Amino acid sequence: MILVVTPNPAVDVTYRVAEQRIGETQRVLGVQRRPGGKGLNVGRVLASTGVRTHAVLPLGGDGGHWIAGTLDDLGLAHTDVAVRGETRTTVTVVDDLAHPTMFGEPGPVLTPDEWDTVTASVETMLDGDVGDVGGAAGAAGAPPAAALVVSGSLPRDSDPDVVARWVTAARRRGVLSVVDCSGTALLAAASAGATVCKPNREELLEATGTDDERSGALRLLGLGATVVVVSRGSDGIAAHLSEHVLEVPAVPGVSGNPTGAGDAATAGLVRVLVDARSVPAPDDATLLRALRSAAAHGAAAVLQPVAGAVDPADVDRFLSTPPAPAHDRTRTPA
Amino acid sequence: MILVVTPNPAVDVTYRVAEQRIGETQRVLGVQRRPGGKGLNVGRVLASTGVRTHAVLPLGGDGGHWIAGTLDDLGLAHTDVAVRGETRTTVTVVDDLAHPTMFGEPGPVLTPDEWDTVTASVETMLDGDVGDVGGAAGAAGAPPAAALVVSGSLPRDSDPDVVARWVTAARRRGVLSVVDCSGTALLAAASAGATVCKPNREELLEATGTDDERSGALRLLGLGATVVVVSRGSDGIAAHLSEHVLEVPAVPGVSGNPTGAGDAATAGLVRVLVDARSVPAPDDATLLRALRSAAAHGAAAVLQPVAGAVDPADVDRFLSTPPAPAHDRTRTPA
Repeated sequence: MILVVTPNPAVDVTYRVAEQRIGETQRVLGVQRRPGGKGLNVGRVLASTGVRTHAVLPLGGDGGHWIAGTLDDLGLAHTDVAVRGETRTTVTVVDDLAHPTMFGEPGPVLTPDEWDTVTASVETMLDGDVGDVGGAAGAAGAPPAAALVVSGSLPRDSDPDVVARWVTAARRRGVLSVVDCSGTALLAAASAGATVCKPNREELLEATGTDDERSGALRLLGLGATVVVVSRGSDGIAAHLSEHVLEVPAVPGVSGNPTGAGDAATAGLVRVLVDARSVPAPDDATLLRALRSAAAHGAAAVLQPVAGAVDPADVDRFLSTPPAPAHDRTRTPA
Repeated sequence: MILVVTPNPAVDVTYRVAEQRIGETQRVLGVQRRPGGKGLNVGRVLASTGVRTHAVLPLGGDGGHWIAGTLDDLGLAHTDVAVRGETRTTVTVVDDLAHPTMFGEPGPVLTPDEWDTVTASVETMLDGDVGDVGGAAGAAGAPPAAALVVSGSLPRDSDPDVVARWVTAARRRGVLSVVDCSGTALLAAASAGATVCKPNREELLEATGTDDERSGALRLLGLGATVVVVSRGSDGIAAHLSEHVLEVPAVPGVSGNPTGAGDAATAGLVRVLVDARSVPAPDDATLLRALRSAAAHGAAAVLQPVAGAVDPADVDRFLSTPPAPAHDRTRTPA
């Protein structure tokens, strides 16, 4: 089972209008509502490719209630931590004429007690739920976790150390962890010894205050991360280790909807790492397969109209095309 | 008790942003959520001025659940008709630089059975609920209705005849009715013999296909309405009868938020009509007092930052200012 934590889930609403205009009343021609937040995208992609997945997430208010019901409908097992704040909504307005406009609500502020409950739920699910009375609904009978994924932003005013607590809980149990967060939460995950830190390039540079990808990756490796995987969109994906960098190009000739492609890549990455039992550290051959899987999952996600979905046939097709040569840029130690 | 039907309620969400821009991600600085729909504005103003009020409304999905809970919190008694569709949301984006942008979801389509249940609820509440087992939650012990208010749009694909059924149900019981709808629903209300049709001028011209207010009002009177009250914003408010027109100017020197001012005016109008027991038809003196009350409530609503609210002290202040002379434009019969 892969355990996926979404610290700041959202009700993702998309409004289609004829033409975006400021200052007018616009009839919404189509409404889509989806459970959002990067971790839920990762979890849905994993589940859609047949990987047993369990989501842990704080939920509050009617938005939280809606997400819980929808995850039930989707068949994605989940442990909900009830919080007093209202789970946020994001509204994205689209037409065929301009770039989408996104309105992001600030989301709830969690209390220390609520964070403690999230952490306790993570620890419980890392160990697996043997189905005792008192197990979370939907969680009964879950096996111990083979991997922990933490993905997406933290709610505002959060202590980034919560991510470190989850990573530490995984490490102590010999469970590999993949963290796709930004800012101080990314640094905290590295310091706690995350197996993989997986920011995109912009997030990496911003979090580390560096000007180039390699320097930023070395910063995270220096803090304690085992591997730093950097997704670069159409420029492919790279795994940084202290001595060298492994790179895989993006699948060529794929265009469509890039939203959530990075989350699908995370799913593709963790699938391979779990299959190879990459604890405490993946070897280079496993990492290259994981990068190719990430690229294939990311490309398959681009073909889908919505985030958090891939067609497994697309993934297989992209994996079976002859791989472009991978670069192994061996470096002398710094 | 005044019975208020809101055929198409909404979760009204307001997002404050720094500056509206198309094609960008915008941080929402403030979120407000309110139960919306014109009838709920009328009901909240009535309740805030101490008038016993009961709302009937179709509600579905999480939005409907949220509205029901919020009406409980506000202390507004309500009978909810559960519908399969999702109660709509409207999102209004505001900044300090441009006009607000409003995104209106289409809302649910109600089945004939669901409409029948709405009508049955209207009939039950017109008769009053004596508190028997089986009474709607919050409705037990309600006295018979002294007035029926129907306000706001119908959901898409609705048969406008549902409004006629409610008006007829009121008329048969000797209960006065005030209908603020648009389009064919307004015509249906007039044909069913509504005591007051209360469109704004644009709605009147659009529904009747006429070019001037008097012609449009005569059309509704000819169909069967007893009085046609037309709200004109800063140009005041008029009551059209077959032989003459009564007019009251707007309260001068009031500026602020016009959203919902027309709904507050409806509340002010119906309060006076109920107090004067204006069945089957209000006399001219009552109508003039009702128009002045409508203008005072509308002006008081403009001073509030949100729709569906007045400060009763503002209403009293505007009512106690010396009234401008009313115009009685007696006409010869057409």
